[in-house]
Amino acid sequence: MVTPHQYAQAHAQDFIEQFIELLRIPSISTLQEHAVDVERAAQWIAYDMKHIGLHTVEIHQADGYLPLVYGEWLGAGEDAPTVLVYCHFDVQPAAMADGWLTPPFQPTQREGKIYARGALDSKNHVVAHLKAVESLLATGGAPVNIKLLFEGEEESGSAHIFQFVKDNPDKLKADVIVVSDGSMPDENQPVLVYGLRGIVQLEVTVTGPMRDLHSGHYGGNVHNPIQALTEILAALHDQEGRVTVPGFYDDVRELTPEERDVLSAIQPWVEREWQLVTGAPMPWGEPDFRLHERIGVRPTLEINGIAGGFFGKGFKTVLPHKAWAKLSCRLVPDQHPATIAKQVKETILRLAPPTVRVDVTHMSNDDAPGVLLDYHSRGMQTCIQAYEKGWGKKPVLTREGGSVPVVAVFQQVLDADLVMMPFGYKGGGAHSPNEYMVIEMFHKGIATAIHFYQLLGASK
Amino acid sequence: MVTPHQYAQAHAQDFIEQFIELLRIPSISTLQEHAVDVERAAQWIAYDMKHIGLHTVEIHQADGYLPLVYGEWLGAGEDAPTVLVYCHFDVQPAAMADGWLTPPFQPTQREGKIYARGALDSKNHVVAHLKAVESLLATGGAPVNIKLLFEGEEESGSAHIFQFVKDNPDKLKADVIVVSDGSMPDENQPVLVYGLRGIVQLEVTVTGPMRDLHSGHYGGNVHNPIQALTEILAALHDQEGRVTVPGFYDDVRELTPEERDVLSAIQPWVEREWQLVTGAPMPWGEPDFRLHERIGVRPTLEINGIAGGFFGKGFKTVLPHKAWAKLSCRLVPDQHPATIAKQVKETILRLAPPTVRVDVTHMSNDDAPGVLLDYHSRGMQTCIQAYEKGWGKKPVLTREGGSVPVVAVFQQVLDADLVMMPFGYKGGGAHSPNEYMVIEMFHKGIATAIHFYQLLGASK
Repeated sequence: MVTPHQYAQAHAQDFIEQFIELLRIPSISTLQEHAVDVERAAQWIAYDMKHIGLHTVEIHQADGYLPLVYGEWLGAGEDAPTVLVYCHFDVQPAAMADGWLTPPFQPTQREGKIYARGALDSKNHVVAHLKAVESLLATGGAPVNIKLLFEGEEESGSAHIFQFVKDNPDKLKADVIVVSDGSMPDENQPVLVYGLRGIVQLEVTVTGPMRDLHSGHYGGNVHNPIQALTEILAALHDQEGRVTVPGFYDDVRELTPEERDVLSAIQPWVEREWQLVTGAPMPWGEPDFRLHERIGVRPTLEINGIAGGFFGKGFKTVLPHKAWAKLSCRLVPDQHPATIAKQVKETILRLAPPTVRVDVTHMSNDDAPGVLLDYHSRGMQTCIQAYEKGWGKKPVLTREGGSVPVVAVFQQVLDADLVMMPFGYKGGGAHSPNEYMVIEMFHKGIATAIHFYQLLGASK
Repeated sequence: MVTPHQYAQAHAQDFIEQFIELLRIPSISTLQEHAVDVERAAQWIAYDMKHIGLHTVEIHQADGYLPLVYGEWLGAGEDAPTVLVYCHFDVQPAAMADGWLTPPFQPTQREGKIYARGALDSKNHVVAHLKAVESLLATGGAPVNIKLLFEGEEESGSAHIFQFVKDNPDKLKADVIVVSDGSMPDENQPVLVYGLRGIVQLEVTVTGPMRDLHSGHYGGNVHNPIQALTEILAALHDQEGRVTVPGFYDDVRELTPEERDVLSAIQPWVEREWQLVTGAPMPWGEPDFRLHERIGVRPTLEINGIAGGFFGKGFKTVLPHKAWAKLSCRLVPDQHPATIAKQVKETILRLAPPTVRVDVTHMSNDDAPGVLLDYHSRGMQTCIQAYEKGWGKKPVLTREGGSVPVVAVFQQVLDADLVMMPFGYKGGGAHSPNEYMVIEMFHKGIATAIHFYQLLGASK
């Protein structure tokens, strides 16, 4: 009898060809004219799900939203663990003009890589999971029940999957949820993320005079709203980079000595990447925390944008009507988005001088809490072992600074162990021109997924 | 024998018609396609200068710059005082789409006003001075020598007149220089400006990472250049609105008790206008100075524009590559533009943290010092008497917050009493749609100019 791993090795070239097939479909979810391509990609996936032996395959799509593909194989029986896998198959826009060396939807192999939009983010995960399941089902079945949930709207805001998850807790019931998205900072060293920051977004508008004034005629007796805004914003951090909003850090879960130790392993990668990517003169941030801790463990208050007055080429001596800024806070457990938004808003309004009007809008639709996955859980421990087998190296654990909102939704709605399982190399440039997937990592990803199902099945 | 005033009254309707003729020429100096109209306006003026009896009439225009018209009548003799009058005949752009009720270059009379681009700024002054001189020369000559210097590039930056003044000190030699530009805050109460603020302009750029970063991935260990910029800018004023740049106020000439008293007369107008025009919640500025003093007597540091990151509709969680701001200082005597620019630049660089790069550019071409005209001078005292006769009211004296660079140049190059002699009402909206000149003020302006020449001639 052929083992799943032997099957995968024997079909390695087929798998690559199927990966390339899916990459050829320009399933760009942010452009209306490509909605039909997102649907084509969904049909490609649904066809493959049936082909590899899933029992139930459904395309969910109502009222013109982009499709979500669900497939399940429950052949392991009620006593076996159930795994729910999430990936997304839609992609960011891509055009030759952005600097692509080969057409983004004509996948090209060079030096062990496949260059194409979506190769890293995130069709690699879609195909790797499909092919891992195929390898199991084609060689006698899987030791776990498998549910695959693939989204077609991730790059355009995931407008419907959150509701779908909330509406279908029974359908999606699982012991372990695998989210395969994102990437790893090293081709040879697997890195597993067990923490993500959440986010709240606010907009601050400072209004001074009712129209733009001549700064000669009124400069000196009208409070310039840009100046008032800079005075407010500057007061939101202390000199060492700590956020001064009262209560901001109250709910931040302290780093345990154990966790601090676990996180130390990622430090060299974070420091190397910091140098490589930022090009900033020197690091900045809370002095009591190391570079990777400032990103993964600590919340922030960031000014994402600011504008006011005349800021184009040349000069205009205007004392402007208004100035505005866009702020976001990255949150960590156990900060609550609404609480933080309220604290920041109140602080800004308290700082507002009576010489201007200050408005703060909290864009609560975009709220997401920070997420911390328990790396002692069965799911995570199984995942660690699977990577050790798939990559030949024990994975390093880390907490990342970005947000993956779907993870927070899964955690809130479904009672399951959660793991994040990326297969690609960060250098492959998600959202960038010449995005690529390292072919060897694609195969290691399939092997790791197979190991994961096998190990989880054996652990029951 | 007819007196000059009788002549002016008899020709009042002719003068209005000539004013309207000049207003019909769209002499917009900021738009290349209207250069020919600026030249037409120059020719109209040169023709009128000859027609009214000036001996020398020249259009100065070299290498494609816009014309400057010079005319002189030196018939009063070497012992008589000489007056040099400066006005400009070019205008700002104007389009119906901006909200004009009648076409901006088809002058329209309604309710005692003439609506047209340039009616207030500044063809009213050009024609009023021409017609005052005509009234004198047509009725026996003027008791003073008269030199008229009319510029066609004022609205587009006055690129050539400064050099012209510096190159022609003998031609322009005068005992009194009259600058007729600007306007008055009341139709019935003449207000004379004897002080103007100067200006220096600087641009500050804060550069952080070498490209825009994801604020999730780097927020917390890269200093956000917007934040650094707000921290720098906020430190440039204290809580009460004083500029904190060391040495900034060192050269500010103190207000004498006498001058403070003289300036008190303008307070009601400044306060009324502040309420009417600004619509700001409440006044702001240095607590030891009254509203009009903060504008006329005190220097400022203003943020005219700021930008960085993503500031359009929506949200982008970017930690931006850079942020920048445009600053200007309004200066008063005896502050020196280069010194102030140096102090501000050094202060900003001293405030710059090592986590970002900060560059400060001083746009020294736009430097202008503050100007203070001696209201005890013969020129100014004569001007005060002329307004008293022309308007029937003693003028109120004031210092304004804006800059009129040509005044500073005259003061630096030519040894003469300087007076500013506006004829229009500020409410007429220079640079705005539906700009207008109050017809009665146009005639009062002509009368005032005639009185001025007569009084100055009698004072010799």
